[in-house]
Amino acid sequence: MDHWYALIMAGGGGTRLWPLSRKDRPKQMLALVGDRNMFQIAVERLDPLISRDHIFIVTGREHLESLRASAPQLPQANFIVEPYGQNTGPAVGLAATHIQQRDPQSVVAVLTADQYIADTAKFRGALAASADLAARGYIVTLGITPTFPSTGYGYVRRGEPLGEIGGFPTYRASGFTEKPDAERALQFLTSGLYSWNSGMFIFRNENLLSEYARQQPAMHALLKEIASAIGHDDYQVTLNRVWSEMPRLSIDYAIMEHAENMAVIPVDMGWSDIGSWATLFEVLSRDENGNATCGPQPDCIHLDTRNTLVVSDTTPRRMIVTIGLDDMVIVDTADALLVCRRDHSEDVRKIVDRLKASGDAAHL
Amino acid sequence: MDHWYALIMAGGGGTRLWPLSRKDRPKQMLALVGDRNMFQIAVERLDPLISRDHIFIVTGREHLESLRASAPQLPQANFIVEPYGQNTGPAVGLAATHIQQRDPQSVVAVLTADQYIADTAKFRGALAASADLAARGYIVTLGITPTFPSTGYGYVRRGEPLGEIGGFPTYRASGFTEKPDAERALQFLTSGLYSWNSGMFIFRNENLLSEYARQQPAMHALLKEIASAIGHDDYQVTLNRVWSEMPRLSIDYAIMEHAENMAVIPVDMGWSDIGSWATLFEVLSRDENGNATCGPQPDCIHLDTRNTLVVSDTTPRRMIVTIGLDDMVIVDTADALLVCRRDHSEDVRKIVDRLKASGDAAHL
Repeated sequence: MDHWYALIMAGGGGTRLWPLSRKDRPKQMLALVGDRNMFQIAVERLDPLISRDHIFIVTGREHLESLRASAPQLPQANFIVEPYGQNTGPAVGLAATHIQQRDPQSVVAVLTADQYIADTAKFRGALAASADLAARGYIVTLGITPTFPSTGYGYVRRGEPLGEIGGFPTYRASGFTEKPDAERALQFLTSGLYSWNSGMFIFRNENLLSEYARQQPAMHALLKEIASAIGHDDYQVTLNRVWSEMPRLSIDYAIMEHAENMAVIPVDMGWSDIGSWATLFEVLSRDENGNATCGPQPDCIHLDTRNTLVVSDTTPRRMIVTIGLDDMVIVDTADALLVCRRDHSEDVRKIVDRLKASGDAAHL
Repeated sequence: MDHWYALIMAGGGGTRLWPLSRKDRPKQMLALVGDRNMFQIAVERLDPLISRDHIFIVTGREHLESLRASAPQLPQANFIVEPYGQNTGPAVGLAATHIQQRDPQSVVAVLTADQYIADTAKFRGALAASADLAARGYIVTLGITPTFPSTGYGYVRRGEPLGEIGGFPTYRASGFTEKPDAERALQFLTSGLYSWNSGMFIFRNENLLSEYARQQPAMHALLKEIASAIGHDDYQVTLNRVWSEMPRLSIDYAIMEHAENMAVIPVDMGWSDIGSWATLFEVLSRDENGNATCGPQPDCIHLDTRNTLVVSDTTPRRMIVTIGLDDMVIVDTADALLVCRRDHSEDVRKIVDRLKASGDAAHL
């Protein structure tokens, strides 16, 4: 499809994957599953659905060089640089503004650089189906079939059916809910009417920009200023000035939760946000004792050890010996070692918070 | 006492303290409790009971330099070098032969370089008491009051009382038993008649050499050859030749188990052989969560972690973060990391055996 574009959000993040994930090496740059980093996988899984020169990246200046090096097949001009992080509302708006100048008829899929998808064929099928709905004026979200009553994701409710497209049943979306409490999460799961909000959205670009104009007129006015400067000498100066005035809002909050004509395509494609060592462990292959690894193969001896994840990122590779362990996570990096019970993986965030509080920049 | 000598056995060992303990850095060279290494502590705890120039060391060539550097206050000539390890029977015989030439009236305490003793005043008191018994012709062993039915130590049985000396009740020894099975170990413990064999022996040196002559005539003849060569040009050649003919026997098996006039002084002095990470943990001080460390202070964050030992031996110090751990041991060295449940500490030996079998000299 000539007007088909992808916009990959590659701003960084991944604090719960410390100490492998660092400020200068966010989750998207890590080879967590296989030997390609998450960003490379996010780019490559679009092939052959979306042509290379239609793939845009929005990121911060600090990640620009490593992202370009990871995906040299993409045109350098397609990397849109935020002056600094202002949440996803301004980031998507900025990139959409660039794409709109390139192609006023563009249909855009907003995707993320750090999600795992096992069934990439199904993913591309769902994207193709979503493009059909987008052409009919809908803003589409890919909904993930929930597997447990998560309180960590947003939920989207299915409304009126919009018919089956390419094997995918599609629905009007009848309401977004941000991270619910445990009781509501369980209700959502058992009702069978809800999907997790994957953060992947597909739309006619002019529809999206209309929603900015309707729901976020201040932000829209700022985006118009940027649009006028694109291709001119004062682009960077304008962007820098305008950026500081941007409201720090997520795309969900700013646009999606109250957009008109929202649709949802529920899809079960082996999705994971790999938000923590525990969720990474779920998608890794394991040996006969249930032990797993990711990245370069560790020099490892396991004795009486089961269901344990060992990640080795030292040069030269250190020998790692485990004895008598169950359900543990060991992450061995050059300057920091994590040993964590797997069911405490969420608490890694607390460590990063503590390092920030103590100003320990070396380990962040 | 003018004729009082100590002989510290410093041959090496400590495989269950891998990866901190290595072939080139045996247990005696490690600062496991406090900031002095085990050998230094073994030397210093004799002060002021035995004068420096009466302290002899028997060791292998590979450890000579580091031992001398650790105890520069000792005369260099007091370091007796085995050509290679032939077990403790020949080692004690060799050193006893040297001491006998120095002082035919010597009373010698055979001690080890890698044992922990909490109450060093009591230790010196027991040594002083043992010297009295030794002067009366006994070969004395210090017996450790058992705290559990260990199958890892030898046992010595108390016989007829020999009176109290300096506050210590003393007894004839009425039989040694090598490592017993669990049932006998329990019998020994409950009988109240047994002590652990500490491997520390005190005797008139000529008594010991008479026992060599009586029980190990071949070994005694070889020791006589060495004695004739001491102070002569052919000493090293003679020693090397003779050494290869030495039977590889422990001092317990070769002499003590069937020596005449054996005595035992049971003493409760907070003794540990620090044979494993678990036994080391027992003697370390712990914080309010029961966590311990040894050696240089680690750069450590503990979250929900209890009763865990963290040993850090990297330069620069790596950050070590633990989350949700109980009863674990973490030993972090430059080229190898051990993560082990504390009650699996004995299995560290299996790792060392495996490294030997695979010829992994770098990690041994």
